[in-house]
Amino acid sequence: MRIALVCVGDELLLGDVVDTNAALVGRRLAAEGMPLCWSATASDDVEAIVATVRDALERAEVVVVSGGLGPTSDDVTRAALAELAGVPLERDAATQDHVVSAYRARGLDPSELSLAQADVPQGAEVLTNRLGTAPGLRVAVPGGSLVVALPGVPSELEALLDEQVVPHLVQRHAGTTAFSLRTVRVALLGESPVAEAVAPLSPWLTEAGVRLAFLASAGEVLVRLSASAPQPEQARRVVDDATARVAARLGGVVSGFDGETLPATVVRLLRETGASVATAESLTGGCLGAALTSVPGSSAVFLGGSVTYSTAAKVAQLGVDEQLLAEHGPVHPDVAAQMALGARRGWGSDWALSCTGVAGPGPADGVAAGTVHVGLCGPGATTVRSLRLRGARETVRAVTVIHALDLLRRAVLGLPTSG
Amino acid sequence: MRIALVCVGDELLLGDVVDTNAALVGRRLAAEGMPLCWSATASDDVEAIVATVRDALERAEVVVVSGGLGPTSDDVTRAALAELAGVPLERDAATQDHVVSAYRARGLDPSELSLAQADVPQGAEVLTNRLGTAPGLRVAVPGGSLVVALPGVPSELEALLDEQVVPHLVQRHAGTTAFSLRTVRVALLGESPVAEAVAPLSPWLTEAGVRLAFLASAGEVLVRLSASAPQPEQARRVVDDATARVAARLGGVVSGFDGETLPATVVRLLRETGASVATAESLTGGCLGAALTSVPGSSAVFLGGSVTYSTAAKVAQLGVDEQLLAEHGPVHPDVAAQMALGARRGWGSDWALSCTGVAGPGPADGVAAGTVHVGLCGPGATTVRSLRLRGARETVRAVTVIHALDLLRRAVLGLPTSG
Repeated sequence: MRIALVCVGDELLLGDVVDTNAALVGRRLAAEGMPLCWSATASDDVEAIVATVRDALERAEVVVVSGGLGPTSDDVTRAALAELAGVPLERDAATQDHVVSAYRARGLDPSELSLAQADVPQGAEVLTNRLGTAPGLRVAVPGGSLVVALPGVPSELEALLDEQVVPHLVQRHAGTTAFSLRTVRVALLGESPVAEAVAPLSPWLTEAGVRLAFLASAGEVLVRLSASAPQPEQARRVVDDATARVAARLGGVVSGFDGETLPATVVRLLRETGASVATAESLTGGCLGAALTSVPGSSAVFLGGSVTYSTAAKVAQLGVDEQLLAEHGPVHPDVAAQMALGARRGWGSDWALSCTGVAGPGPADGVAAGTVHVGLCGPGATTVRSLRLRGARETVRAVTVIHALDLLRRAVLGLPTSG
Repeated sequence: MRIALVCVGDELLLGDVVDTNAALVGRRLAAEGMPLCWSATASDDVEAIVATVRDALERAEVVVVSGGLGPTSDDVTRAALAELAGVPLERDAATQDHVVSAYRARGLDPSELSLAQADVPQGAEVLTNRLGTAPGLRVAVPGGSLVVALPGVPSELEALLDEQVVPHLVQRHAGTTAFSLRTVRVALLGESPVAEAVAPLSPWLTEAGVRLAFLASAGEVLVRLSASAPQPEQARRVVDDATARVAARLGGVVSGFDGETLPATVVRLLRETGASVATAESLTGGCLGAALTSVPGSSAVFLGGSVTYSTAAKVAQLGVDEQLLAEHGPVHPDVAAQMALGARRGWGSDWALSCTGVAGPGPADGVAAGTVHVGLCGPGATTVRSLRLRGARETVRAVTVIHALDLLRRAVLGLPTSG
């Protein structure tokens, strides 16, 4: 069963917002063996939506539409759905009650525009939205295909997708081809070296029908392996086998698999070894702590951290040597080492990570943007990784966090920490 | 001049990655008055790319293609471009030299796959990539339209776009209709109340030819105003006027304009008033510090922060009353107040922000996920905002950060801090 996605919204085309809904829908469907075959973004305009959904219907039997169902005048997806189905819009009484009571609960009277959220294409199935007012809609279109429209607010889309859309599609999909997908996550090695390390497996992968793709982002490469087969276990077995072979070729640079992000891997390794960590951050300003605590359950291993953004704070909070700071400034490998040492002592943790550097844009105190020192203090010794990173301010900060987490991952696993 | 975008990559359709390139391209083109009219995502497959670019060419005279130009076997955009132009691929000598020297500089010998990055459709114009090996390509297609292909690595795409693509398109576009765009940013008010506050302006906006759109995300709504006119100044004047009217209707909930994010607004207000800030974070784990320090120049106002993730750290680092913690646990308004007080005292800052709560998933210590207290300690007094937030772990953390920043914004501006 082929599924395509149409996102609606001028804000997406204008780049006011990054489209996280598309990735969410893609991820959820891929996890169920129904990967998206195509997606597109249309502006807030009935004709544009109709034409784009028609393009999608040429490629897929099911089209998911995200956005344009809200209470404002630029929300025109309902009208587009009615045109696609060749039916009029009509007010749905149950949905109107839902809208009215949601507004009343907040002490508001719904306006006429708000009530328009209860207008649905005749014959459409209404998917009640327990987190908001705009319902999802399931609309049959001429030719036997299906259009499923969901509100664009990410939390509402996610709830409707998980609770009402994916289960329905899984049922519809049952009996067709199975698809399996695994991801090997690689930290701090470029796309070309990763591809070249895996290249000797190509004949085997082709023979086994496993498709290979590489996805590079700042500091990480994801190697994606997928295959189709008549039976789910068959697809899963060949992809699992391929995943193990790819991981073996890559060795210690493999940071994790599938949805386990680098912070999640680090938190798991710390839990498994019963060890704790603390942080001392400068240029990352809290990003390292934020990454660790993005993982549910991180409180079992993360004691806390200091954001010593000023030089004075590095002395007062972490006991960094004033003489050293006076001679070399705050961006120096020994400062990173002393920050990690001070954090480990101060928090009483097994491990402590630190970072100091210049995020940019432009140099600071005569030090070039991208100059970064990452420190790790642990039961054995203190290690510093000194880096010259490229890219914009947020890239430098993000890659610094990856280096810090990778340093700790390698130390906990007993791998060489030099990368 | 109509411009459409085609992004290439299975990773986008599978949701392995959020497509930030689309937003970047959209933002850059909109800033130059050439908003994207449509975008789509195709899989790593020659036929899929060709068909999608053809759909785009039905809507636009210029199609920007992102991705699929790299050195791995799933990079097939070059072949698709050759098919679209109806020409063969041929090896470009200058590009091959560039690829070889880039690999040699890293001590590597380019593989045959890597050299394929120098294969370009006959007659295409090569856009040299100073940050990577895969060049951009400008290809004329039958019918007089233009396809511009860029590598998908975000930093490389951004550099090529800014240095070689946008200037060329601006030149091509000159003389056609001008477009102007402004954004009013609203913190912590829902999409419906924002739309209803602005509704009385509708007749005036329609009369003036100003288009209005609303974009809601967790904790923020962007109100976008745009208009077209024969002359740039004309478009700008009407949109500036509309922006002022919309902001006046909304009042104190307007946190900023255009690209100035809430953290950037707060950093600017602190700089303007010569005041400093420190943070004491619990459930956000560093996200608040990370948000403040995402702003270049934040070191002038941000002294630092503590991430006191554990209860013991709240006592040791911030001097929170042990009795209070024993009686009520760490998620209590008085704990937030004492954290802010302790941070202000410890860091010697003018202002201090704190937050404590349960990010989820699920309750902690019998307190429901989404229960959050945000504290602010300043020259006058200490304020606490107590919240019941909805949504997933990362949403709760993100909205907590918005509340903290909004509290400080209101306090600095002398607005009521109750929202």
